Amino acid sequence: MNSSLSASATLHINGDRLWQSLMSLAKIGATPKGGVCRLALTELDRQGRDQFVQWAKDIGCSIRIDEIGNIFARRPGRNNDLPPVLTGSHIDTQPTGGKFDGNYGVLAGLEVLRTLNDRQIRTEAPIEVVVWTNEEGSRFVPVMMGSGVFVDAFPLAETLAQTDAQNISVASALNSIGYAGNTRSQHFPIKAYFEAHIEQGPILEARQDTIGVVTGALGQRWYDITITGMEAHAGPTPMELRKDALLAAAGLIQSVNRIALTHAPHGRGTVGWIDNFPNSRNVIPGRVKLSVDLRAASDEVLSSMDAALHAACRELRADSTLAIDIEQVVYFPPQPFHQEQIQAVRNAADQLGFTHTDIVSGAGHDAVYLARVAPTAMIFIPCKDGISHNEIEDAKPEHIQAGGNVLLLAILEQAGIASAGS
Amino acid sequence: MNSSLSASATLHINGDRLWQSLMSLAKIGATPKGGVCRLALTELDRQGRDQFVQWAKDIGCSIRIDEIGNIFARRPGRNNDLPPVLTGSHIDTQPTGGKFDGNYGVLAGLEVLRTLNDRQIRTEAPIEVVVWTNEEGSRFVPVMMGSGVFVDAFPLAETLAQTDAQNISVASALNSIGYAGNTRSQHFPIKAYFEAHIEQGPILEARQDTIGVVTGALGQRWYDITITGMEAHAGPTPMELRKDALLAAAGLIQSVNRIALTHAPHGRGTVGWIDNFPNSRNVIPGRVKLSVDLRAASDEVLSSMDAALHAACRELRADSTLAIDIEQVVYFPPQPFHQEQIQAVRNAADQLGFTHTDIVSGAGHDAVYLARVAPTAMIFIPCKDGISHNEIEDAKPEHIQAGGNVLLLAILEQAGIASAGS
Repeated sequence: MNSSLSASATLHINGDRLWQSLMSLAKIGATPKGGVCRLALTELDRQGRDQFVQWAKDIGCSIRIDEIGNIFARRPGRNNDLPPVLTGSHIDTQPTGGKFDGNYGVLAGLEVLRTLNDRQIRTEAPIEVVVWTNEEGSRFVPVMMGSGVFVDAFPLAETLAQTDAQNISVASALNSIGYAGNTRSQHFPIKAYFEAHIEQGPILEARQDTIGVVTGALGQRWYDITITGMEAHAGPTPMELRKDALLAAAGLIQSVNRIALTHAPHGRGTVGWIDNFPNSRNVIPGRVKLSVDLRAASDEVLSSMDAALHAACRELRADSTLAIDIEQVVYFPPQPFHQEQIQAVRNAADQLGFTHTDIVSGAGHDAVYLARVAPTAMIFIPCKDGISHNEIEDAKPEHIQAGGNVLLLAILEQAGIASAGS
Repeated sequence: MNSSLSASATLHINGDRLWQSLMSLAKIGATPKGGVCRLALTELDRQGRDQFVQWAKDIGCSIRIDEIGNIFARRPGRNNDLPPVLTGSHIDTQPTGGKFDGNYGVLAGLEVLRTLNDRQIRTEAPIEVVVWTNEEGSRFVPVMMGSGVFVDAFPLAETLAQTDAQNISVASALNSIGYAGNTRSQHFPIKAYFEAHIEQGPILEARQDTIGVVTGALGQRWYDITITGMEAHAGPTPMELRKDALLAAAGLIQSVNRIALTHAPHGRGTVGWIDNFPNSRNVIPGRVKLSVDLRAASDEVLSSMDAALHAACRELRADSTLAIDIEQVVYFPPQPFHQEQIQAVRNAADQLGFTHTDIVSGAGHDAVYLARVAPTAMIFIPCKDGISHNEIEDAKPEHIQAGGNVLLLAILEQAGIASAGS
């Protein structure tokens, strides 16, 4: 395998072809502002899926669709009894999404297969490129639906029964677009799972690194907090007789920030949503609801942040006559990725001479679920200003190409080269 | 006058009659929750005005309506060349208003005239009970419209041209309800102006005092502040690379509170309104708009608070990469009331044996404008939990009666007693 691997260092994907495929897929659901709106299981999603399936068939892949609509495009290996190496992502988008989020991971995988065909390389293990259903969760909850069902995070029947705002079920939407498959949606033995993705954050750009070697994903705890004071006229009510819910909320917003800073380097704390009542210029706010989003790389740190948040609420309650309710509404455990696959990504970046840095994904990805059932790693590339879930989401062609080349080598390391043509 | 005054100490209004009048007027526009919705210059306002006018005519008053719809009900004195003593308030309400705000001041004035009639007391100077048009500003801006025009704070023609949300002008609404009067809306010589009002704050109730001797009104400065950062994913964005507008806003909300506390006893600072963008649970807020309401009893203190607020914004700007814009949108100067009239209220409370405290009005009132053209004071009575502009606004009959008795004596002190019957 070592000799094959050093041979593989001379292999490169076709960056132009990958870029063209991204631009071509982006036309399906293109928005006037240069983004993409292709919500899961819509007619546009069908068109995108059909395009992917056609491209995969064009290079000789066999296609399986499972019960939740995940698409598996398989390129056989020399030994098809071996567990396949999987790679992929999703092609559904946010309502004001971009061209790269998800799509990049799917098409980089496709480009790897095209390159192997071009070079007549046969791998030991088969390779499958996967399109996971409804990663974004914009139309149907939960997010990461397809990969979640695949790894048993959600029961299939319940998930198929989920409905959108128009009361259309997942099952019905899958049928409408012809992607209600009959392969059982259930994980199988997998040699390795790789997912290439734009970073959706500012770290690589700030460091001017080309590749993020993703070592895992942050755990998340989300909370709803309600602070109840008493609304009163801003004019006649002296400061000492107020029960100002927004003033208390301001203290809590700062506490959330402090909690994140004291749990560096990976601790994150955000208040993204706030609802102020009655929200009138000259009325002291009587009730504030706000969300808290805490993230950390280990459960130990996340638990410590959770304890600090509860302590901040208790202190605030003790300091005031306000009522404070806190409820945890979401918990995702931290998900470390797997050493061998992380190292495969790092090796590939080194072989290709790309600057790289280890990075922990702050966002959820299909890979975070896959890591529960398969040895997993991710490859991040920089995106402009760290922006995604936005029509102005952008990435540079050279980074698109670099990530594809890293994916190629990492996959080859895990799949093994059986024989190469030219 | 001293002998007349000591005679007057045995005079009392009829508390039951005043209470019945309040309950009767509250039926016009009564809401299911026990409040009143009687917006300015509506058909319901007409009914309320007609009721007042009828009651005033029943006790022999002459009625004048001015060009902005202010109603003056005049009880002649012995010497009708003397400037009259004025008392009154407003009968328009907030959409979810109470029974007492404004209405109390008008009907307490009416009850004073009824009592003088009952006791066949002739005053030296005439007494006029005034109903000011559109104090609340709910349907038409500006607030305190009738008293504002009367004291030349707003030009008449411009004010008549103001329109509501249905594009109906003040002039047209006044015509529709038959209250476009032909008396010039212009201040005239006034001996004294008194306005009885519920406190709309918690001070008297907290102190268990019956009467608030109002020595003036706080000045107000209102601001719009916009903090611009950069929205970004809460997960992938490290704390040190964030431009979190809500976190900055939290600091500013605390600064506003600190500024008020360091300008005790009358300094007040409130952030009542906040708009957070994009207001999504897992997105770092990119832009926050908020209102700031600063109040103080003197222009010197208010200016110092203004300087402190600007300094806080400058500090925040220096500490961060955020943009902060601050714009002052409202300025009301502090309005001291007049010593002789304040003393008349204090004397009356003392004579009647009521506990009282000096108080500065934090809210705007018609009296605040009247003080520009007439020697003015106000009489506050407690209201339940300091709540007003709310259907649950409430006041105790004994406080309603007490305030009416104080108003009676204060008016008599200023108007002088010419002769008394029984």
